[in-house]
Amino acid sequence: MFNYKLLGTVMLVAFLWVQSVPQVMADGAPDPLPSWKTGPVKASIINFVSAVTDATGTVYVPPAERIATFDNDGTLWSERPVYFQLLFAIDRIKALAPQHPEWKTQQPFKAVLENDMDALADAGEKGLLQLVMASHAGMTTAEFSQIVTDWLASAQHPRFKRPYTDLVYQPMLELLDYLRANGFKTFIVSGGGIEFMRPWVESVYGIPPEQVVGSSIKTQFEIRDGVPVLVRLPEVNFIDDKAGKPVGINEYIGRRPIAAFGNSDGDLQMLQWTAAGDSPRLMLIVHHTDADREWAYDRDSHVGRLDKALVEADKHGWTVVDMEQDWKQIYPAGE
Amino acid sequence: MFNYKLLGTVMLVAFLWVQSVPQVMADGAPDPLPSWKTGPVKASIINFVSAVTDATGTVYVPPAERIATFDNDGTLWSERPVYFQLLFAIDRIKALAPQHPEWKTQQPFKAVLENDMDALADAGEKGLLQLVMASHAGMTTAEFSQIVTDWLASAQHPRFKRPYTDLVYQPMLELLDYLRANGFKTFIVSGGGIEFMRPWVESVYGIPPEQVVGSSIKTQFEIRDGVPVLVRLPEVNFIDDKAGKPVGINEYIGRRPIAAFGNSDGDLQMLQWTAAGDSPRLMLIVHHTDADREWAYDRDSHVGRLDKALVEADKHGWTVVDMEQDWKQIYPAGE
Repeated sequence: MFNYKLLGTVMLVAFLWVQSVPQVMADGAPDPLPSWKTGPVKASIINFVSAVTDATGTVYVPPAERIATFDNDGTLWSERPVYFQLLFAIDRIKALAPQHPEWKTQQPFKAVLENDMDALADAGEKGLLQLVMASHAGMTTAEFSQIVTDWLASAQHPRFKRPYTDLVYQPMLELLDYLRANGFKTFIVSGGGIEFMRPWVESVYGIPPEQVVGSSIKTQFEIRDGVPVLVRLPEVNFIDDKAGKPVGINEYIGRRPIAAFGNSDGDLQMLQWTAAGDSPRLMLIVHHTDADREWAYDRDSHVGRLDKALVEADKHGWTVVDMEQDWKQIYPAGE
Repeated sequence: MFNYKLLGTVMLVAFLWVQSVPQVMADGAPDPLPSWKTGPVKASIINFVSAVTDATGTVYVPPAERIATFDNDGTLWSERPVYFQLLFAIDRIKALAPQHPEWKTQQPFKAVLENDMDALADAGEKGLLQLVMASHAGMTTAEFSQIVTDWLASAQHPRFKRPYTDLVYQPMLELLDYLRANGFKTFIVSGGGIEFMRPWVESVYGIPPEQVVGSSIKTQFEIRDGVPVLVRLPEVNFIDDKAGKPVGINEYIGRRPIAAFGNSDGDLQMLQWTAAGDSPRLMLIVHHTDADREWAYDRDSHVGRLDKALVEADKHGWTVVDMEQDWKQIYPAGE
């Protein structure tokens, strides 16, 4: 007698399997995300994009509303041993030290000049702010942009001995391209400095300066010797982190994302704000689980702590990338 | 004897005439700016666009750098008898008055409720700020967007008896389209409220919310009954006027425009900032000279005062539109 029950089970399994296979691959087109291993994470991305771009579907989203926001540190590029922008500030303090003999005895500058990481940690947030102001303010916007560009051209990451802009995630580069190919507008929404990112993110990520949201200091318009300039002031303008992220998204973009990508508790409110919209949404967290190829850290980390957002992700079924399991490759191939 | 001197003069005149004729019209293509009269103003626009988009030319600008910034009040739509946003605030105060019996005796609210324009003027900038905070803060961003949309759907301009969004300049709509057709990204950079503009500028000007820079109040992220919201606070965040315009351009766009369009001294610094870049630039001022079809005002006007910027325009050869002379039509045809 024919086993209808077994046939039913086989068909159900086959149906679920087909559902989980990315549609783009099913129709024989080239894989848009070759560095992502086949599995539920990759499927959740491709199925989301397929659904919102299907003009005949019930959850179609017009191109103008296809806004995707990406955290930068730890989501698009690495953030260890500390945020790369802090390493920039430290290098900058050292470069400026000859003009500031007083720094030899003054904290937090003394700690930087003596590579005393404990003393630097003791200086806390206030000390960090002093370093940022001393290294990021006092010049024109054009001068600062050039300083960042020059630094990136020469500085090397202490562990990988490669330029910092090499330490971007190959799977995320593919994801950015894939979203843009499907009519998405890709934005960075980072706690990092907006002017620290703008000089290089267009060539590295394909994200133009006008699609970068970040922390900033105030600037002032002046005419110097007949030439209009913007001078960077040692005063905080906006901190684009935690509850600041939805505020920044609203202020700079003015439209709620339908997809958001982060890796830490600093991204939680951005993910919540994104999730609260109508229509299908994609909320994705990059979980750093790969100590060999990158780093492994989450709940107990000072840099990029991932605790509450992981709980929320689990509760709401957000997509969590296990770097070690889901990514075939971490960084782009060297030259 | 053949008059070579006359021939030379005729050829010179013909040469200059050909130079001033817009190139697009010379090759028989349809006129992209049909509401603009032929003349040096129209020619300066078309010759600029032709030059920077000619990939074989010496002043070619790649599409990513084709940033054009437009003031809104008095440049894209009318601003008389007063800024339309102030009329919105007044209507809003009147609508809220039943919940605020104290306003009957409290300035500047009393002045608004009694239509006492002299008392309102006496309240000065501080009074204006009080009206703005009372009418623009205290609700979520989504609620405010809906309030603006509802107001625009029902309010009528006191002189023209048409919706305010009908009082946009037809020649500028054509200019926006023409620039976008030539790979420009068009931005609004206005002293008006960013959240007052975003609900309607996409459908009226074709400018998406993420390409709007404006003045703003602070917002705060909250979770109310499990739903994330952004609440509008009665606190100024940024004033996008005068020296604030280049600051806003740098902060929100992060790239210097190659074309800027304004109509008042509030736009002077934006025009200066634009003019100071390398490569060809287009700086254009709309001069309100048409009392019959719109309004005529400049140096002595409280709203949209045009004094210093006109002097600068003359000095540097910026393009000045004489509305009465240069525009065949002011507003789009009624329905």
